[in-house]
Amino acid sequence: MGQRESIQEHGICLTVFLEKAVNTEIIGEKSPSKVFIVTIYSLSGLEGVSYLKLDAIFRPKSVAIIGASNTPGKVGYVLTNNLLKSGYAGSVYLINVRGGDILGHQSYKSILDVPGDVELAVIAIPSQYVIPTVEQCGEKGVEALIVISAGFKETSHEGAELEKKLVETVKRYGMRLQGPNCLGAINTHVPYDMSFASTLPKKGSIGFITQSGALGTAILDWIIAEEIGFGSIISLGNKADLDEIDFMEAMAEDPDIKVILLYLESIERGRKFLEVAERIVKKKPVMAVKGGTSSAGAKAAGSHTGALVGSFLAYQKAFDRAGVILTESMEDLFNYAVAFTQQSLPDDEGIAIVTNAGGPGILSTDLVEKLGLKMASLSEETVEKLEESLPEAASTGNPVDILGDALPDRYAVAVECALQDPNVHALVVLLTPQAMTDALTTAKHVVDLSKRYPDKPVISVFMGGDWVAEAAEHLKDNGVPCYNFPEKGIKTLDALYQYSRHLKLPELKPPVFDDIDRETVRRIYDAVRKDGRNVLFPHEAVAIVQAYGVNAPPSMLASSAEEAVGFAEEIGYPVVMKIVSPDIMHKTDIGGVELNLNNANMVRIAFEEIMRKSRKAQPLAKIYGITVDKMVPRGREMIIGMSRDPQFGPMVMFGLGGIYVNFLKDVSFRLAPMNER
Amino acid sequence: MGQRESIQEHGICLTVFLEKAVNTEIIGEKSPSKVFIVTIYSLSGLEGVSYLKLDAIFRPKSVAIIGASNTPGKVGYVLTNNLLKSGYAGSVYLINVRGGDILGHQSYKSILDVPGDVELAVIAIPSQYVIPTVEQCGEKGVEALIVISAGFKETSHEGAELEKKLVETVKRYGMRLQGPNCLGAINTHVPYDMSFASTLPKKGSIGFITQSGALGTAILDWIIAEEIGFGSIISLGNKADLDEIDFMEAMAEDPDIKVILLYLESIERGRKFLEVAERIVKKKPVMAVKGGTSSAGAKAAGSHTGALVGSFLAYQKAFDRAGVILTESMEDLFNYAVAFTQQSLPDDEGIAIVTNAGGPGILSTDLVEKLGLKMASLSEETVEKLEESLPEAASTGNPVDILGDALPDRYAVAVECALQDPNVHALVVLLTPQAMTDALTTAKHVVDLSKRYPDKPVISVFMGGDWVAEAAEHLKDNGVPCYNFPEKGIKTLDALYQYSRHLKLPELKPPVFDDIDRETVRRIYDAVRKDGRNVLFPHEAVAIVQAYGVNAPPSMLASSAEEAVGFAEEIGYPVVMKIVSPDIMHKTDIGGVELNLNNANMVRIAFEEIMRKSRKAQPLAKIYGITVDKMVPRGREMIIGMSRDPQFGPMVMFGLGGIYVNFLKDVSFRLAPMNER
Repeated sequence: MGQRESIQEHGICLTVFLEKAVNTEIIGEKSPSKVFIVTIYSLSGLEGVSYLKLDAIFRPKSVAIIGASNTPGKVGYVLTNNLLKSGYAGSVYLINVRGGDILGHQSYKSILDVPGDVELAVIAIPSQYVIPTVEQCGEKGVEALIVISAGFKETSHEGAELEKKLVETVKRYGMRLQGPNCLGAINTHVPYDMSFASTLPKKGSIGFITQSGALGTAILDWIIAEEIGFGSIISLGNKADLDEIDFMEAMAEDPDIKVILLYLESIERGRKFLEVAERIVKKKPVMAVKGGTSSAGAKAAGSHTGALVGSFLAYQKAFDRAGVILTESMEDLFNYAVAFTQQSLPDDEGIAIVTNAGGPGILSTDLVEKLGLKMASLSEETVEKLEESLPEAASTGNPVDILGDALPDRYAVAVECALQDPNVHALVVLLTPQAMTDALTTAKHVVDLSKRYPDKPVISVFMGGDWVAEAAEHLKDNGVPCYNFPEKGIKTLDALYQYSRHLKLPELKPPVFDDIDRETVRRIYDAVRKDGRNVLFPHEAVAIVQAYGVNAPPSMLASSAEEAVGFAEEIGYPVVMKIVSPDIMHKTDIGGVELNLNNANMVRIAFEEIMRKSRKAQPLAKIYGITVDKMVPRGREMIIGMSRDPQFGPMVMFGLGGIYVNFLKDVSFRLAPMNER
Repeated sequence: MGQRESIQEHGICLTVFLEKAVNTEIIGEKSPSKVFIVTIYSLSGLEGVSYLKLDAIFRPKSVAIIGASNTPGKVGYVLTNNLLKSGYAGSVYLINVRGGDILGHQSYKSILDVPGDVELAVIAIPSQYVIPTVEQCGEKGVEALIVISAGFKETSHEGAELEKKLVETVKRYGMRLQGPNCLGAINTHVPYDMSFASTLPKKGSIGFITQSGALGTAILDWIIAEEIGFGSIISLGNKADLDEIDFMEAMAEDPDIKVILLYLESIERGRKFLEVAERIVKKKPVMAVKGGTSSAGAKAAGSHTGALVGSFLAYQKAFDRAGVILTESMEDLFNYAVAFTQQSLPDDEGIAIVTNAGGPGILSTDLVEKLGLKMASLSEETVEKLEESLPEAASTGNPVDILGDALPDRYAVAVECALQDPNVHALVVLLTPQAMTDALTTAKHVVDLSKRYPDKPVISVFMGGDWVAEAAEHLKDNGVPCYNFPEKGIKTLDALYQYSRHLKLPELKPPVFDDIDRETVRRIYDAVRKDGRNVLFPHEAVAIVQAYGVNAPPSMLASSAEEAVGFAEEIGYPVVMKIVSPDIMHKTDIGGVELNLNNANMVRIAFEEIMRKSRKAQPLAKIYGITVDKMVPRGREMIIGMSRDPQFGPMVMFGLGGIYVNFLKDVSFRLAPMNER
């Protein structure tokens, strides 16, 4: 019979790592006895809330392009040309050291020569000239800079030094900096194009912040072809000053932006990100693709927790907690975003599907269930109405199969029946091109009905190519997202549900523990440190756990048989006794553990025996004494652990403990602090 | 200390279900004692191999359209029009009860009036006229029928009866039947279009068999827009006669088809499918999307195995075993198929990525790792060559980042370096549109290099829209699959790897056990049946398990104290004793179990005590006696189970047993029989 400690669940805010090796060892596993304890995380380090108005970037009244060029193909040419033809209504000043006309406009040799005020300077000159130029911008009173130029941190040590100086210069003049090594910015509402994209995308309300400039350009080209509407695109570059948090805050305040998309490879200010994202998500959906999920993973220390906690896990938990929807692919990200800008959120569970073909209906239903969404159970009235209106062979279940010969009118009846149903909170309209199908008229009906029931999100999946192209365009142009395969539609609906569920979560109000005996904890740590150890002995671990208010079986360190008896009488029989020595790893093997001791005499004998056997086995071992522990009945082994993520701080682990912990990994992680729930 | 049986692993072909409740009960869990045993699966039931030549459908010399019509919009019109303009070179006969000219061609009132031979008849007339028409086809000597007409099994009981008669009629004349209720067939090589698709797709080598006609039409329309090449499409309809197995066999023999795709909702002849698919996959890749994965699941009997085995699991295991690649979406299915028809299979692990942007490279690498694929570690020569040829800021690791300003020449150098590397067995070329990018010329280099290294698959991902459209088309047209997002490219590569790995698997040579004591098994079953039970007692279960050659601790049923002592002496001390009664569920509770009995006297006393307590607790219980079992030391609990899938037959479960089995589900399933491996 093994001895187990009854670790009481004590709220999840507990940030104590109690490795259960203590127990597994006793029941026969040969692992070293280790107990780590880490201090409770202090919330006081979080930075205060600050709203940053980046108007000089989001709504500049005047822009200077430094490095403007007349030579086609050059960055300075592309930037100038794009800005000039983008319809930007503010003042544009072109700066080129050689001066002269550029694309038919006057240019200045220096920004200091510009007659009017300059709010924003876009800099695209070789990196070695950037800092003197930035000095001039400062003198000129420029508010913000977009540094396109590469050759900074991303290249070499010298580049990193240069970047440091760049930031110092920028700060000295109280300016803000986007980049360096970025691909600029686009805004379709101002409008302006300060990027390499040759065309502005369609006006829309998606905001996109990307850490990869190239990905931004590629996506931009793609969304232009797909006719997806966009509001604002920001290329972060090296994030020397402004980062994703600043731009998220700005987009949160921007009335033209309804949904914020992120492509991120790293987040340096993790806790701040969490705090800002949590706040923003309450107002606007934020969705992210995270690059670098594989390489960073699982390099933490070799403790149980470290081995189980990968860094991507911290990102996942952080995004999850903030309500940032993490998607697996860039394409998904934009498919979802369109739906967020066009449709409302579902109020409740219950999806209806209307289809003119069995196959896609089945595939959609499969995915609904797989994603944990719920099909609606149609009301009796709806079923009756459908039975009256549809041909006999139609299926009035859910999916509602209105058959391959369905004309637009039949679609309209079925779609309206579904939208009227109080059990239906989201609708998917599937269409496959068949002999009688009139896709465009069907699309028009769907658009009209979606507008008449604005509280229930409608997603359409019109499968096929040319046959449905016009219909799909009509849907997209009129506010009903349309996809060409069922999985895209259902996954989009899932994203709407994720956000809707998040908004309904109770607010984060972590419990505060005011009964922690910090003095004891500090005393034990001091002693352990003084002893030159970085591992706690079991009796120390128990004392610390108890200081945090967790019920743990008493454990006391005795240095003589009589003291052991005294402890045993105090604790109550039966007890367990174990040798305590940093040098003895496999206590059970050498006879250093005695279980089930029922009286003073047994304790006395056990003390002498354990000492004798330990001395015999390892004569040179440093022996601290023998612990006397309460022998507790068998229970469920739980593991509670904690690791400190470099970005997001303390992360708590909770799950099934014991010998299978590494094998089964049946553990759950959350960033601290948490609600009690 | 609990008593555990040491179940020896005995090959995986063992199809014995041994529920471990026997043990868990003793250690304190309150579950009823149940042991099921099922008989070993016989291989003799598998049908013999038969090759079906469906030439009358795949290569008809002459076709009659019965129900041909002059009225636009009618099925008979669409079919006639499509066949006539599809370029079909064989004889076409149009049949219409009213006769007259149809689309400028002579028609016949009956197929019997046709002057020449008719190999294939396509029937599109109301269901009530189908059978007499089929009779006429039979008289005429038609070899095969495609019945488009609906109104059969899919509608009603009467429809099902009609379908039965249809099949009888077809068989009476030795004909074969595709459908009814199907959307026809298309072949781009013959060529012919006997479907509703208005255009023939591009000629190619993908064969597609679909159980959903509408999905087939939608996909057809999509692939025409996407310019994906196709060889043959078959709509299965109700599968009254010919089913997916027959058409798979035909496509396997068809030299124009290189890859076979399936959309299936059901497989009726599961074991036959398995056998045929296993054979075909050795020659050509087969990929499938399965519809209906959610509804059918987990309705099996309430045993542990039943609860864990969903029906979709059986499909997964069957596809997995046969090497049929199961994909999650129709889009994936076709993306993968294109790669299979254009590129070779990777020989070994080791993927190289060449990119002009970090972001997509990172996302691709993430997915490579996530899917369990391996990035290549580039050879020293390759790294040196790359270092010589690329700018200093480029990354010569893997992904090879050739920087945003990469011109086609730099791509060519990096791609060739990678393809030359003996550690590289597959290549992904990523391109994002940036200021200097020349996508089309880059595409041409990639095509040339891919042709020069035909043994290594090359997949390209050219992100963007119009900027890369022409380049993407050049790649696709010249045998290099091109996708617009990294995940599509990497998932496609994963499919190539899946197939490549499958082809390297050892052949299925399940072990044959000739040391099974079937006589004992039969005797015990007969006795249990005679006793009116469908549950075995532990001692019976142990005897059966032993008869199959599995080492199990002895268990014997004693009806007197002296007999118990005799058994205990024979087995050896210590022993465990348990009451055996179908009426006593919670043995431990009533004192019906005694552990750790070390001598004859203890056994004698235990016998009397167990009897006394059992009688006292349940005076009316039918008591069979008391088992005497060997008390064995604690071990790992394993669960071995078996269920019989309605489609695919015996499926074996193996995994972690004990009290957590339902909770952790750490079990693995395989269709029997298996290799020993």
